[in-house]
Amino acid sequence: MSEKLGRRTLMHVVGASAAAAILPPLRVAVGTQGAPASSRPSVMPKAILFDCFGTVVQWRSSIVAEATAWGKAKGLNVDWTKFADQWRAGQGREMGRVRRGELPWTNLDTLHRMILDRLLVEFGITGLTEAEKVEWNRVWHRLKPWPDSVPGLARLKKKYTIAPLSNANFAMLTNMAKHAGLPWDAILTAELAKQYKTAPQAYLTAVELLGLQPGEVMMGASHSFDLRAARMQGLLTGHINRPAENDVAKPGDFDVVAKDMIDFAAQLGA
Amino acid sequence: MSEKLGRRTLMHVVGASAAAAILPPLRVAVGTQGAPASSRPSVMPKAILFDCFGTVVQWRSSIVAEATAWGKAKGLNVDWTKFADQWRAGQGREMGRVRRGELPWTNLDTLHRMILDRLLVEFGITGLTEAEKVEWNRVWHRLKPWPDSVPGLARLKKKYTIAPLSNANFAMLTNMAKHAGLPWDAILTAELAKQYKTAPQAYLTAVELLGLQPGEVMMGASHSFDLRAARMQGLLTGHINRPAENDVAKPGDFDVVAKDMIDFAAQLGA
Repeated sequence: MSEKLGRRTLMHVVGASAAAAILPPLRVAVGTQGAPASSRPSVMPKAILFDCFGTVVQWRSSIVAEATAWGKAKGLNVDWTKFADQWRAGQGREMGRVRRGELPWTNLDTLHRMILDRLLVEFGITGLTEAEKVEWNRVWHRLKPWPDSVPGLARLKKKYTIAPLSNANFAMLTNMAKHAGLPWDAILTAELAKQYKTAPQAYLTAVELLGLQPGEVMMGASHSFDLRAARMQGLLTGHINRPAENDVAKPGDFDVVAKDMIDFAAQLGA
Repeated sequence: MSEKLGRRTLMHVVGASAAAAILPPLRVAVGTQGAPASSRPSVMPKAILFDCFGTVVQWRSSIVAEATAWGKAKGLNVDWTKFADQWRAGQGREMGRVRRGELPWTNLDTLHRMILDRLLVEFGITGLTEAEKVEWNRVWHRLKPWPDSVPGLARLKKKYTIAPLSNANFAMLTNMAKHAGLPWDAILTAELAKQYKTAPQAYLTAVELLGLQPGEVMMGASHSFDLRAARMQGLLTGHINRPAENDVAKPGDFDVVAKDMIDFAAQLGA
């Protein structure tokens, strides 16, 4: 306890960067049962940024549910799970093209539409009006949260500044929050850096806008690659397990390793 | 009623810009008593952006209250109202230098500190530590809302996307919202355009990030110059009267002219 207070006081007095140079590397104090539920990171962040797709909201089941109802009304016979998975895979491919400079900066709503237009051809879906395509592309603005996301975030908000830091664009994240009731303090996105995660500037622009040092901010995600990239820029890291995302972390892999958003809040004392 | 529905339907079908070209200029339907409380603008926005200093939060009284307590503890004999007014006047002066290109882009926290350092000399305040200056500069992060701001915004939030659009920087607005309980859906600021209002790009960057057209967004402020600049870029405008800001608007000067934030919400059907 006194060691924790000493570290936090030092952080406060000399700043996170100087404290990081003075103090030994962070270690999560794993509970006696080896269960992460009782562990607490030694340094608490001032702000926590969250990946959204998969971590806070469930993209696959949301898209499949809406598409199934919509397809039934339209008389379409489509494997919507495959459709959703290919849309998601297209994100990674198109964002990669932007990252490599093969495409100029293009926000995710626009990339989604490019992918959608291709998928409609591949899945043989014809006869949609432009208004229907626009509406269908916005399914990503209407993704449902995991059941523990809103209560977990509400607890965290009482103690920390919380915001998304997603590759989704500002409008998508704002509408998603409104639709799903996500209680963000602010909306942060790779769009503000015009560089997609895992580019360093995507993380650093968010940290700078918050007026904080990287060591005062934690990235929360269900994807290890996102967290490793954030750690490279000096951010604290928190892994939130989501079975649908197939990315399991072991205790000690990140500053916090949590079973779900409620466990994540508990480990951060919220 | 049917005229209103017709206009809104047209907006929805052809978009705000096209509708604006087709429809006659907006007129606020002033109530039979000439009182603005019962009026409603013919076109409702999808999002409302708010000026903050003076409109949502009370800068002068907040600074004077904190400075008086702090000055007493320090044994300082200073006219804090004059101090606060000169700090506020310095904002306009320094932002003007940025607008004219005499200073490179510099966010408001940094401008505040430049002004503070000069005011400390002018008011003969000496012996402050660096930590005390940093803390005192952050008084702008702790401004108190007008009593009607939080309940009025909470009503508006149920029907519209609401966000600040202030010259304050992102961190200042995020901390201000956290401190004052302002229920924003997102934080928008001139900092994201790196151009201070009343530069056109300050308004247009915010509209673009929301994924909307200018005619779908209303600027809400207690300063006519801010609203006139927003209107030049095609935004709807709402004037919220704040006696401390000495800027009275007549019914018809803007799309909405409200007595306070509660009246503003009522006029927008929220």
